[in-house]
Amino acid sequence: MSIQTPASALKLDELKTRVEEVLTTFLAAKRLHGAAQGRPDLVTPIQQFLDAGGKRLRPVLALVGWHAAGANGDPGTAFHLAACLELFHAFALIHDDVMDHSDTRRGRPTIHQAFARHRPPPATEAQAGRFGEGAAILIGDLALIWSDEVLRAGRPTTVQLSRMLPLLDEMRTEVTYGQFLDLQATGTPNLSVEAALTIIRYKTAKYTIERPLQLGAALAGADDALLQALSAFALPLGEAFQLRDDLLGVFGDPAAMGKPALDDLREGKATVLIALALERADHAQAAQLRLLLGDRGLTEEQAATARRLIAATGADRKVEGMITERYDQALLALEKTSLAPAAAHALRHLADSAVRRRT
Amino acid sequence: MSIQTPASALKLDELKTRVEEVLTTFLAAKRLHGAAQGRPDLVTPIQQFLDAGGKRLRPVLALVGWHAAGANGDPGTAFHLAACLELFHAFALIHDDVMDHSDTRRGRPTIHQAFARHRPPPATEAQAGRFGEGAAILIGDLALIWSDEVLRAGRPTTVQLSRMLPLLDEMRTEVTYGQFLDLQATGTPNLSVEAALTIIRYKTAKYTIERPLQLGAALAGADDALLQALSAFALPLGEAFQLRDDLLGVFGDPAAMGKPALDDLREGKATVLIALALERADHAQAAQLRLLLGDRGLTEEQAATARRLIAATGADRKVEGMITERYDQALLALEKTSLAPAAAHALRHLADSAVRRRT
Repeated sequence: MSIQTPASALKLDELKTRVEEVLTTFLAAKRLHGAAQGRPDLVTPIQQFLDAGGKRLRPVLALVGWHAAGANGDPGTAFHLAACLELFHAFALIHDDVMDHSDTRRGRPTIHQAFARHRPPPATEAQAGRFGEGAAILIGDLALIWSDEVLRAGRPTTVQLSRMLPLLDEMRTEVTYGQFLDLQATGTPNLSVEAALTIIRYKTAKYTIERPLQLGAALAGADDALLQALSAFALPLGEAFQLRDDLLGVFGDPAAMGKPALDDLREGKATVLIALALERADHAQAAQLRLLLGDRGLTEEQAATARRLIAATGADRKVEGMITERYDQALLALEKTSLAPAAAHALRHLADSAVRRRT
Repeated sequence: MSIQTPASALKLDELKTRVEEVLTTFLAAKRLHGAAQGRPDLVTPIQQFLDAGGKRLRPVLALVGWHAAGANGDPGTAFHLAACLELFHAFALIHDDVMDHSDTRRGRPTIHQAFARHRPPPATEAQAGRFGEGAAILIGDLALIWSDEVLRAGRPTTVQLSRMLPLLDEMRTEVTYGQFLDLQATGTPNLSVEAALTIIRYKTAKYTIERPLQLGAALAGADDALLQALSAFALPLGEAFQLRDDLLGVFGDPAAMGKPALDDLREGKATVLIALALERADHAQAAQLRLLLGDRGLTEEQAATARRLIAATGADRKVEGMITERYDQALLALEKTSLAPAAAHALRHLADSAVRRRT
């Protein structure tokens, strides 16, 4: 991220780098401990997964939330909270890729794909696939288990834990329900816009924006009024962020994304964009679109047809409008709240990049 | 379990019932909270999974460990630790069933099977299967996440947490590595007895016996000497327990087990029994056995052939000998340790039932 930084501004790139250092140090200790016990190396796949990319949006938001609430206490504790959120997110993505049978993530083979390829003969393709999936489920489990440990490695006090853990509990449960709703809706022929918006709220608005911000703020001792003000900013922004994601998932530039803009269509992903397109399509358009969505073997040419059909309904422009609406709502909420200027500045910047990004 | 109980003895059945009550109360609150939020019910599948059976070995061991170390502190905290271990175990089994593609568990369809069957049309069989697997992965994740919460619902003090959490961290990591080693070894044609014993140590001896005992003892304030004495009892007993499991998995009574004694053979499960059989078999026997092991479509008749081949090598009798050896070693370690008589009595009883069971 590049940003014009006033003297007091938070340097988001530096925050990201420090979170990555916490994770690398934590995982290096895990690798050493495992090697000393003669265990197979399951740490490197997690480190490589983290190294391959990611916006570090949740850790950065936690740190901005911590600053928004006065940055009280040991910064090391805040960086470990941030690292916890990133490791938890690695868990969620690794399991998500297994559930979606995705082949690539961040421009590289997904973990289950990578392990399936390394299964030595005489394994059949099916056996290799099962091995890969099992390995990815277990590596995801480790990332989840270790996300707890990295939080505690930041030595939060009992009071700090009692502030953070209820929010962390909620966050972990919410995103799991969000994933389930998504799974349930995927491939459903008559997804309503409302159902698609509920999924967005759980999977993204709360998980990606609201809870990380609140967690950081709670660590610094934020009161309920501040936690609610952050929520009023976070929920519309989170929806805008996911709506942008859904547009990029169908209309994005594959080179910039690190994956083809085919996956969402092939999965028949239950997005607001698709729900709107189906709602607005005439009978013939809807029938044609339903044939294409969820087709695992969808070609680039068929995808182009799907894109044309969606655009013909005006669903993409409608989604752009929804993004703007929510972005404005988030910024209005932000203006109403009196935060430390550096934190407010960072939140405005994050809102911009969440909504105006190409990846 | 039935046992002649001297006046001072721990009533293990009562301990089990109280742990089950803690879990039921905890999950009922989760169900209510979810319903109030309009979330789909993912709680009932977990409750039903728990209700369908299970020995509650880990919770009971934690409670016996707590008594062995003097039963200091609020018993409610100990019961919540016990509940945490059972919920964690539900997580491990639910994911294990996905990884193994098992159809039944505790005499009922596995969670992924049950969800796959409830996927409404127009889902194809493959889509229904993916939905079932995804649902089971997420429900397993919830059980893991909630196992943390139920532990804290017992309101452990900061000191108690600082005693338990390092052991719990180790336990969770160890069992995940154990699962990975097992996955890696499954279907491997030349599994060594040593490799199979390493898997047993991680997956069962440490996870099922040592860590639960130590966790309960640590909660009551056990010193390192007591924790090590419990380990000296637990590790050989845990190996004996798993060796019995492996025998039952091939030679057990399907009616008593609640599942056919075919799964281990069909999976090509990497057990000490199989490693020994392959090591002791002559060339023709080994070749025939390898053809049968890991055959997903193995018939009852072919399974009978596999059983005859294994028995012909004497591997089953050798495993019986190993069980006795380890049982004796565990009891010797127990005699050397001075524990509260009620706890020592309960451990002897548990050792007996772990080794001389039919399910």
